[in-house]
Amino acid sequence: MKYIEPLARLIGQLTKLPSVGEKTAARYAYAILNAPDEDAEELIAAIKDVKENVHFCSVCGNYTEDDVCEICKTREPKVICVVKEPRDIVALEKIKDFKGVYHVLGGVISPMEHVGPNDIRIKELLARLDGVEEVILATNPDVEGEATAMYIARLIKPLGIKVTRIARGLPEGSVIEYADESTLSRAMSSRITL
Amino acid sequence: MKYIEPLARLIGQLTKLPSVGEKTAARYAYAILNAPDEDAEELIAAIKDVKENVHFCSVCGNYTEDDVCEICKTREPKVICVVKEPRDIVALEKIKDFKGVYHVLGGVISPMEHVGPNDIRIKELLARLDGVEEVILATNPDVEGEATAMYIARLIKPLGIKVTRIARGLPEGSVIEYADESTLSRAMSSRITL
Repeated sequence: MKYIEPLARLIGQLTKLPSVGEKTAARYAYAILNAPDEDAEELIAAIKDVKENVHFCSVCGNYTEDDVCEICKTREPKVICVVKEPRDIVALEKIKDFKGVYHVLGGVISPMEHVGPNDIRIKELLARLDGVEEVILATNPDVEGEATAMYIARLIKPLGIKVTRIARGLPEGSVIEYADESTLSRAMSSRITL
Repeated sequence: MKYIEPLARLIGQLTKLPSVGEKTAARYAYAILNAPDEDAEELIAAIKDVKENVHFCSVCGNYTEDDVCEICKTREPKVICVVKEPRDIVALEKIKDFKGVYHVLGGVISPMEHVGPNDIRIKELLARLDGVEEVILATNPDVEGEATAMYIARLIKPLGIKVTRIARGLPEGSVIEYADESTLSRAMSSRITL
């Protein structure tokens, strides 16, 4: 005996959440157990709502409740920013500078995980390049993200469309002394004239 | 715009869990969104099960699915270990040494939070002392836990029942250099002859 069955079961389900171990799951389970019934009902309703009503935008692959997402509906598709996942759009939208549209790949090319170019939404990207002036490749600055950006750039550049990659360098507030070599090397080689 | 409404709502519900901020809640929400439907259904079923079928043992106050918990059903009530919350029982049961029963107070005396002796299950403890040989006070070693233990000890000792308090001292694996004064002082005064 450790936890009674319903608690053990809830703890087991909660450990499926990212980075949630048994202790954290137990804290959450106790909180749910001790919370007012309305809170548990609202949580259940919110989970159901997300599972039933959120799907992918038929144009860009972002999360939406409709057929086409708010961004695709309201902005001009002259500049397309290519990202790995819908959550990257949330991060990029926070800076408020970008007025173009997005394209979600739904993953990156990764031979290690058996993800090839046909497993992500590259074909869908190529199919919507009519009238597009620039494609910004905003995949993560890691091995897979870099390889995916290079792969897509090689496909699109011959079409005469401007292809750019988000800049790499030292992050705001960082300390040169502790920066890793790869970042520092990139920051030096991408230096700009003042 | 930041998150679409169903996601924002689920994130809001998840931030009600202990120590879960918006970023963590967003990670959980995305995980739930991307998980198989069965996982979300099992999570919902587990939450419902806990809210509907878990209640307090009518004898000791522990969590149970029945009227009386497994421990009260199967063990002799000669030694009662008094704890603040049901989750303390889970911790104490892990050590497997204790063969007695428990009594959950459901809180501790705390004038700051307007919790008096009548707000916790002290009367219920006094009502089950018939034939009891020892009462172990296992409330937390903090101000409220200590005060509650002292209060209960004063009530029970006159009845001729042995009353003990769990030991305080340096925790396993700790370093004397960094121990707080109160712990160190307790470890010195409670030293045992070898």
